[in-house]
Amino acid sequence: MLDVCLLGCGGMMPLPYRWLTSMMVRYNGMSLLVDCGEGTQIAMKEKGWSPKPIDVICFTHFHADHISGLPGMLLSMGNSDRVEPVKLIGPKGLINVVNSLRSIAPELPFAVECIEIAGNEQDFDIGGLKLHAFKVAHSIPCYGYSVSIDRAGRFDADKARQQGIELKYWNKLQHGETIETGDRVLTPEMVMGPDRKGLKVTYATDSRPTDSIWKNAIDADLFICEGMYGEKDKIDHAKANKHMTFYEAAELAVKAQVKEMWLTHYSPSLTRPDPYMKEVRDIFPGAVAGKDGMSKELCFED
Amino acid sequence: MLDVCLLGCGGMMPLPYRWLTSMMVRYNGMSLLVDCGEGTQIAMKEKGWSPKPIDVICFTHFHADHISGLPGMLLSMGNSDRVEPVKLIGPKGLINVVNSLRSIAPELPFAVECIEIAGNEQDFDIGGLKLHAFKVAHSIPCYGYSVSIDRAGRFDADKARQQGIELKYWNKLQHGETIETGDRVLTPEMVMGPDRKGLKVTYATDSRPTDSIWKNAIDADLFICEGMYGEKDKIDHAKANKHMTFYEAAELAVKAQVKEMWLTHYSPSLTRPDPYMKEVRDIFPGAVAGKDGMSKELCFED
Repeated sequence: MLDVCLLGCGGMMPLPYRWLTSMMVRYNGMSLLVDCGEGTQIAMKEKGWSPKPIDVICFTHFHADHISGLPGMLLSMGNSDRVEPVKLIGPKGLINVVNSLRSIAPELPFAVECIEIAGNEQDFDIGGLKLHAFKVAHSIPCYGYSVSIDRAGRFDADKARQQGIELKYWNKLQHGETIETGDRVLTPEMVMGPDRKGLKVTYATDSRPTDSIWKNAIDADLFICEGMYGEKDKIDHAKANKHMTFYEAAELAVKAQVKEMWLTHYSPSLTRPDPYMKEVRDIFPGAVAGKDGMSKELCFED
Repeated sequence: MLDVCLLGCGGMMPLPYRWLTSMMVRYNGMSLLVDCGEGTQIAMKEKGWSPKPIDVICFTHFHADHISGLPGMLLSMGNSDRVEPVKLIGPKGLINVVNSLRSIAPELPFAVECIEIAGNEQDFDIGGLKLHAFKVAHSIPCYGYSVSIDRAGRFDADKARQQGIELKYWNKLQHGETIETGDRVLTPEMVMGPDRKGLKVTYATDSRPTDSIWKNAIDADLFICEGMYGEKDKIDHAKANKHMTFYEAAELAVKAQVKEMWLTHYSPSLTRPDPYMKEVRDIFPGAVAGKDGMSKELCFED
């Protein structure tokens, strides 16, 4: 089970009625945050989620609306008596930016490890969660992120019997162990059915539409995508500032065949996204106008 | 007329129902801000005041809850099409801290000038506003600030006549000009009565009680003072962390003979200050529990 929350849905600057865009994912007692702008820690408290179990904070890029809340977040994590190390992941330059921002948060009761993404794509294993970073197209280097959980196939007793595997080995094989008996090597693949559908959420913000986005979002249960402008005539603004319109985001959702898409990162000039949603859903019916604190439990099928 | 707003009244970390402590003063078309923590720009928008006319931002000290909102504030000022230079005033080290934080706000459409306070006290003239910084006693170097406007005396026609000053010079003298006639030098003092009471607001936060605080707050129309704890048994916490209880703040207000005191910088553990206010007012009757967005127009007497 993957617990996903869009803590805020604004872009550029925090507003009294709209927190900055940030996604939090909870899984198996740990939490992962993507982006941390000014006020993200307040949005989190408003939602009732805790900063303490955050093991990883990923940054799409270093514009202030995506990272200005980092010093306060780290201090609040410290004040919650966290002592376990925290991993920060982001584009090249992360170490410098984090060191600079920590001029006002120099003392923390936990270690901070910075990982700068190398190249266009990179995989990370975060306590059983698969994290995949992929480059998008903004005015400065920027990455999207997919967070996913794989799901093994079912145990296939017939398959085990057909291969003459003794009953006493079944449980271990089902739990991923490889076993050497006197004469043969038994592997989990010998007793398991095909992998089942896992869970996946993809987050992409501050970008023009790119192939990397829709390819990385393929089959996502939830695709959280920037839509800076609902007004169609703002397409030139979107192109100039390397952002997307709602309709461009919807086209990406169609290509990626995701289950559901939440729009986010609205321009401060966009007071209400709803009036544009009918046309967006004409393109992609699973489109939803993101709202601060909107959350969803992604659960395995069956 | 001095327009004063306590934008937030929290200490340590911003909370869903409490912005961080910050004071904004508006005077004659310009604005001055003291402290700018995470969310201060949102508190300002919530109040309906604008970041654009802020000519000066003063910092008491460099703990994150007093400065973490600076990059976002500067960017929002830039987005409001401000082009006039902005002055930042704070303890020694300001230039380094500001340069570090500007790693995420490198490009602004206005110049930023940093002034590091030298010594224990320093005066500044901010477009007719008198700003006075004074050292307080926190765990790191920290200053309080008084903002005041002087008020000249009334024009004294009798005095002018007694000194044989011709009527044609009265108006110029009244407006502060010095005039050389053929045989004598005429100065404003020759025609003006004694200075009248001006306006003054004093702001002190993150400190143990000090003589510098009450001496600098003497006769203030409004004294905004930290009160981290309302619980009397937290005096040891207050001493250890270099903060004050409500009662210590009230004692300072008594010594300084201020008109009114607003408490601020509440500990996150303090949910409601009101239950403690009766006892605080037993010490100083003009004590008020500060609230986010509380504001007051200070006007000349008469």
